Amino acid sequence: MLTITPNTVGSHVEAKDLAAHIGCRVLIHGVIYKIRVMSGFAFVLLQTKENILQCIWSADGSDFSIGELRCNMAVVFSGDVIAEERSRSGYELRIRGVTALSNPTGEPPVVIHGKELSASLDTLLDYRPLTLRNAGERAIFKLQEGICRGFRAFLERKGFTEIHSPKIVSSGAEGGANIFALNYFGRKAYLAQSPQFYKQMMVGVYERVFEIAPVFRAEKHHTSRHINEYTSVDLEMGFIESFADIMALETEMIIDTLEYLKEAYPQELKLLRVKLPQVTGIPSIPFGEAKELISRTYHRAVTDFEDFEPEEEKLLCEIIKKRTGSDFVFVTHYLSSKRPFYAMDTVGNAAVTESFDLLFRGLEVTTGGQRIHDYGMQIEKMQKKGMSIDLFESYLMAHKYGLPPHGGLGLGLERFTARLLDLPNVRQATLFPRDTERLEP
Amino acid sequence: MLTITPNTVGSHVEAKDLAAHIGCRVLIHGVIYKIRVMSGFAFVLLQTKENILQCIWSADGSDFSIGELRCNMAVVFSGDVIAEERSRSGYELRIRGVTALSNPTGEPPVVIHGKELSASLDTLLDYRPLTLRNAGERAIFKLQEGICRGFRAFLERKGFTEIHSPKIVSSGAEGGANIFALNYFGRKAYLAQSPQFYKQMMVGVYERVFEIAPVFRAEKHHTSRHINEYTSVDLEMGFIESFADIMALETEMIIDTLEYLKEAYPQELKLLRVKLPQVTGIPSIPFGEAKELISRTYHRAVTDFEDFEPEEEKLLCEIIKKRTGSDFVFVTHYLSSKRPFYAMDTVGNAAVTESFDLLFRGLEVTTGGQRIHDYGMQIEKMQKKGMSIDLFESYLMAHKYGLPPHGGLGLGLERFTARLLDLPNVRQATLFPRDTERLEP
Repeated sequence: MLTITPNTVGSHVEAKDLAAHIGCRVLIHGVIYKIRVMSGFAFVLLQTKENILQCIWSADGSDFSIGELRCNMAVVFSGDVIAEERSRSGYELRIRGVTALSNPTGEPPVVIHGKELSASLDTLLDYRPLTLRNAGERAIFKLQEGICRGFRAFLERKGFTEIHSPKIVSSGAEGGANIFALNYFGRKAYLAQSPQFYKQMMVGVYERVFEIAPVFRAEKHHTSRHINEYTSVDLEMGFIESFADIMALETEMIIDTLEYLKEAYPQELKLLRVKLPQVTGIPSIPFGEAKELISRTYHRAVTDFEDFEPEEEKLLCEIIKKRTGSDFVFVTHYLSSKRPFYAMDTVGNAAVTESFDLLFRGLEVTTGGQRIHDYGMQIEKMQKKGMSIDLFESYLMAHKYGLPPHGGLGLGLERFTARLLDLPNVRQATLFPRDTERLEP
Repeated sequence: MLTITPNTVGSHVEAKDLAAHIGCRVLIHGVIYKIRVMSGFAFVLLQTKENILQCIWSADGSDFSIGELRCNMAVVFSGDVIAEERSRSGYELRIRGVTALSNPTGEPPVVIHGKELSASLDTLLDYRPLTLRNAGERAIFKLQEGICRGFRAFLERKGFTEIHSPKIVSSGAEGGANIFALNYFGRKAYLAQSPQFYKQMMVGVYERVFEIAPVFRAEKHHTSRHINEYTSVDLEMGFIESFADIMALETEMIIDTLEYLKEAYPQELKLLRVKLPQVTGIPSIPFGEAKELISRTYHRAVTDFEDFEPEEEKLLCEIIKKRTGSDFVFVTHYLSSKRPFYAMDTVGNAAVTESFDLLFRGLEVTTGGQRIHDYGMQIEKMQKKGMSIDLFESYLMAHKYGLPPHGGLGLGLERFTARLLDLPNVRQATLFPRDTERLEP
């Protein structure tokens, strides 16, 4: 019997440790990103898991012909790490030998190794396994990883417990027809539109909870802002005094995360020329006032009194940016008629709710608010909406036997990423997007 | 316009900071866990988000009647923090005043505030929003959070990039009939059985990737080991020399995570009397030898030559435990006929694969192995299996244009938690389990 012990993985030097190996011979692996043949030597760019390493093949220094190398080939190079001022990293690898580990078949159907991809959105997405290898595309999803890490680290510091709630559910949390149905062992089931019910139940257990997980919306909209499966950053928090506590928490979470990105992902921010917003506080405006302000400022007639048109979200952000310099704005007190049954109505004005959206550079990226915690009040609101109480028995158990005042939010990770990186379409911030027409790859 | 700035959340002291407030008057919030009335005073246990705090109500010190407090009530207490040796924490709260924030309706249908829940599994799950409030149940999912954090921190240190792959897919990765179908805008789609295809594609992008996310299996088994939706810890890693690299990585990940739990969750480990396994290395045995060993040791006739019966997994773990002291064992070289089409066959013996399972205290918790990276080899194996190559065009794009040798694993978070905490049924390690009969809560 053999015993597997840790630390047996590889004797190759990692790219991030190369600076400590200047003057040494090393083995290093990666995928060939680009080859530029000069006279008697060649630049070979090697994509390692951390970055792109400049390597030099030379007719007299390397023990193989440059013709043996091809783009996309996985290789192990042996070579010498040499200080080199003209290289961006301050060093380069003089290649001695090579072991090829893969054998790519012909030329890819898209040119992936340019600085930027010049491809239509459909091409970008149709050839995703290849186009994601482009340095710019790689950087987008490294930054998305950073956003997640930033959010998660912040929430952990604030005492939030991470949960895993089911995605196959017996009823939708957001109501409406925008829900995927499936056959679950002969019964009808649905794909969760949000973890709303579960995170509220869990407030009764841990007081503060969060989940970063997929949610599913069967919306038929085919726009640059909609995808049918997205990653939702959800949190829920007990013992709040008002929904302003949730807005304050989100403000702090965003400030913290932007700081973290600056520290941890400078390379990706630079490559994508990201202009990080400066945030110390986020302005807030009630929905009704916002409607008026937009109408007044741009001399637009209001046609929909209950909701924003997408264009209005953009215009509001323009106004706020001009007036306050902020790239973010909270819109509060959305109409009760447009918010789900669990939204807390405003005391003294039941037509509006203790709720908010966060708009970021023209796009709604978060929906949140205070929820009803009192059993009697929740039953009453559900009855007014004509809902069947029986269907929500286990959810209402939490209310019946005591829930603290609470609220929370859901943030769309892809939308947040898209606005932060100024990507015009949310699909560009999604590894493998799903929309009304796309189910592949 | 109001500007929301961070740090406005609450003026209440957090339970974890109370030791620094001995001798002070504080406001603290929580949910009443238990009340024990004595003569002239009462013990009131307050569930805070961190722990259970011992509070003392007294007829002469508190400005309200004890009859006003009820279990499950969310409250803010004002009171004095007093050093008290007989309290487990070394201090207690002498309650002065109270603000009640919720109004629980009557007695819960299950007694949730005992030390351990004495309820059947069905009751435990039917009343999940309540039974999870029990201290023992709370501890289970705090430890599950800790396992996730441990795994994630380890993988981040090892240079793995976190990804989010779609759960609505056009074809299954694991094959077979165990897949949920849904109507996706008039087309047939499925729920992902694993992120296998996506993590392999992403090896071509980041070399090392991981994802912790739900997966869905439409298996009709109704056993203590099966649920139909679970949280899969998936990783995939390029430039391996053999699948032993993946086993070594998992060994290291487990050692690291057990250490982290010891440091970060002592309270929960103690409450649940968890016996953490001692791991320095994990023994490994080929599938064929394991079958023989079990048969020889227990004088059992082998009836299934291709797979383990559940009983055999238990017996093998018993043998390994006796011989080596290890709670874990890797079983390697499963039959090609029983592994998916992407599994790498062993050189010189195509009947077996470069694959492994990890068994932990009698139960399979991980499946992993080396994958085929060569395009030609993958096409050939798919053709042998009679598969339609066309259906996998985008997946195979990754192979066609170069993938390094790679492998990975998927670990069931709930199974791992159940075995670590010695819970007989995997449902006990699932917040809201889904099985062939259960879709609620």
